[in-house]
Amino acid sequence: MEAGERIPVAEPVEGPEAPVHAVTGTLFGVGMGPGDPDYLTVRAMRVLAQAPVLVHFCKKGRRGNARTIADAVMRDASREFPLVYPYTTELPPDDPEYIGALAAFYDDAAGQLADHLGAGRDVAILSEGDPFFYGSFMHLWRRLKDRFPVEVVPGVTGMSGCWTRAATPITWGDDVLTVLPATLGRAALVARLAATDAAVIMKLGRHLPKVRSALDEAGLLARAIYVERGTMAGERVLPLAEKSDDAAPYFSMVLVPGEGRRP
Amino acid sequence: MEAGERIPVAEPVEGPEAPVHAVTGTLFGVGMGPGDPDYLTVRAMRVLAQAPVLVHFCKKGRRGNARTIADAVMRDASREFPLVYPYTTELPPDDPEYIGALAAFYDDAAGQLADHLGAGRDVAILSEGDPFFYGSFMHLWRRLKDRFPVEVVPGVTGMSGCWTRAATPITWGDDVLTVLPATLGRAALVARLAATDAAVIMKLGRHLPKVRSALDEAGLLARAIYVERGTMAGERVLPLAEKSDDAAPYFSMVLVPGEGRRP
Repeated sequence: MEAGERIPVAEPVEGPEAPVHAVTGTLFGVGMGPGDPDYLTVRAMRVLAQAPVLVHFCKKGRRGNARTIADAVMRDASREFPLVYPYTTELPPDDPEYIGALAAFYDDAAGQLADHLGAGRDVAILSEGDPFFYGSFMHLWRRLKDRFPVEVVPGVTGMSGCWTRAATPITWGDDVLTVLPATLGRAALVARLAATDAAVIMKLGRHLPKVRSALDEAGLLARAIYVERGTMAGERVLPLAEKSDDAAPYFSMVLVPGEGRRP
Repeated sequence: MEAGERIPVAEPVEGPEAPVHAVTGTLFGVGMGPGDPDYLTVRAMRVLAQAPVLVHFCKKGRRGNARTIADAVMRDASREFPLVYPYTTELPPDDPEYIGALAAFYDDAAGQLADHLGAGRDVAILSEGDPFFYGSFMHLWRRLKDRFPVEVVPGVTGMSGCWTRAATPITWGDDVLTVLPATLGRAALVARLAATDAAVIMKLGRHLPKVRSALDEAGLLARAIYVERGTMAGERVLPLAEKSDDAAPYFSMVLVPGEGRRP
């Protein structure tokens, strides 16, 4: 197929009640995987090669990380459609100004994408990891899903990339896994860590000192592994207890591997 | 490259202290994704195309599901190396006879694979979903990892495939996600479900009535979605409350999507 030609959706709707796909584009949520472009799926590669509009989220003045992953397979800037967040970490996520600005941002972005879709152009939203596991894609998806055909392409999650590079299984046998945002309060973190067999702590940022202290109180600090930029350039993997500073970029997480059944 | 030629590992070790890769093969754990072969990664496709020994786990008299996924990319049976489980669901997982038989099975399998690796042949173990997220790969990995070079290829998990086909984000904003094996006791299930924002319940099998009852007590039955064979032939997605029977095959799970922040 040529770039820009219609991408067949996974399960085309047929018959007399089918929506008129001939005149609208399909909204694709494309899981970009953890970072290494070799971990893109076959389906993601195909959509990236063909969609005429490639949307990526980014911070003002920077490229989005999803766009960086796409570099390996997509050279032409003409299809790029960056969406620049009004804020990222400047305001707390429960600040009404932050929520209002983000809502307006997503409304406006959805409007722009609807114009493309309405004109028959497929739109692919590049989503770090898996599109339906945290992230921004779903905020556009919920604004557009009832008006246009949608295909979500699942991706390898960032956490899978991290435990792969940490060279450790995360769950064995009947282990319970808890995925925790580091934004939780310290007491909540301690309680949830104490009650699980395995844990992944995401969104570290400025919360690393609290996370470290919560792991210590839950008796898990010795098992905790810090992974930064897993599967990407600049990757770092080390026991959290050996990390001497409290700096943690956006693409970092803490893993607590399970210790379940090992026949 | 030709089939059987050595597959470059992701990060080749070089220099005078490098192990002698020339005479041993590499052990690959290949994430096969959730079922649809389009969700294999680029790296998995490459390893599957080239490894001379392709290992898959299966039940006596059946093909493994990982092998079925591989059908799309691998036609020649000559490279196949099936490992037949001594038991699957005939005995409870804490039965000493079950544990002993499985340990002997993994020991024996690891010995056979070590013969191939020692003779310089790369060995790829086909792993449903992601190799380090539950499953059998890690039991061979832990027996072989200190003797041979290893590369794990992360995969799209079965749960990602299921929430993709259920057309629902699993986590929004700062949602906590808990992954629970249905093998847990009812009280433990209720407690963990009541304490989480989003949940995935795996390994349903004969435990579905207990899971349904626990979800009901935790007030989550109305939000629960049942997904069977997600992304595979025979896929079924329906609200758990509308599922009228209690049959749940191996490839089925229950999703409880989070309801977090939606600006």
